[in-house]
Amino acid sequence: MSVAVTVRPTVDGDEAEILRMIVALATFEREPDAVKATEESLRALMFGDDPKVFAHIAEADGRAVGLALWFLNFSTWTGRHGLYLEDLFVDPEARRMGVARTLFAALAQEAARRGCARIDWAVLDWNKPAMDFYRALGAARSSGWQPWRLDGAALDRLADG
Amino acid sequence: MSVAVTVRPTVDGDEAEILRMIVALATFEREPDAVKATEESLRALMFGDDPKVFAHIAEADGRAVGLALWFLNFSTWTGRHGLYLEDLFVDPEARRMGVARTLFAALAQEAARRGCARIDWAVLDWNKPAMDFYRALGAARSSGWQPWRLDGAALDRLADG
Repeated sequence: MSVAVTVRPTVDGDEAEILRMIVALATFEREPDAVKATEESLRALMFGDDPKVFAHIAEADGRAVGLALWFLNFSTWTGRHGLYLEDLFVDPEARRMGVARTLFAALAQEAARRGCARIDWAVLDWNKPAMDFYRALGAARSSGWQPWRLDGAALDRLADG
Repeated sequence: MSVAVTVRPTVDGDEAEILRMIVALATFEREPDAVKATEESLRALMFGDDPKVFAHIAEADGRAVGLALWFLNFSTWTGRHGLYLEDLFVDPEARRMGVARTLFAALAQEAARRGCARIDWAVLDWNKPAMDFYRALGAARSSGWQPWRLDGAALDRLADG
């Protein structure tokens, strides 16, 4: 059975489907309770004034089956913005239909339109099937760099001087 | 000798100093020829309409001695924007004066103002002195995640379908 997969930018009203897929992805990532985002917070940040976070939804048979949520990063080396893919999700029952590839192709076109030289993202180090898929696209691990984070009480302390 | 270090957001006209420190950082990172950014490209993206990349400059004795260049990222788990620190640089002759800490404190205050829950960045895996400094701030490595990238011909191919 072949089902046509289409991709479109999200619009106001998509926040329930976006949140559903964010929670499903967090569950897959073994952090089902990590999601503090709400439909209201997504709506305000994604569909309000001057949004700085964006998404594309993949649909099959008129139903949302995949999500790519992204923002613009910046490289001082290239001197250009790039696309940073924060979340990529495909519904389990819609896997092996090319949904993830179709979403990535839409992001590549978005990058080209915006003059972006790169798409960056992060993958959990146990997620080998995802790495195989990324390698097949021609992507590579950015070796040599370690992600670091400051948050919570340490961040508050630093702000307070 | 004690020298007062102050930090301010960058303004139109700072692009030459910003580029100087970007190039100095790339040289320290062993990639002196990697910088394709120009004063013009920085000026257009940082001081034009609706900028999505920002920086703070540290000054001592009226001279720029440090740079923190950043943009807003987004976490679907927190549902909030965060600050992503793309470049942090301190002039060699201005080290051990608290410049990096003063820059980080300014970013923490910027994060608080914007309701951001986190500051994220990446460090080269051989840069132990930087890691010691980050640990002293209360930051930690975001273990378990691998950075990946798609660019060049593979990105173009995907955009072309």
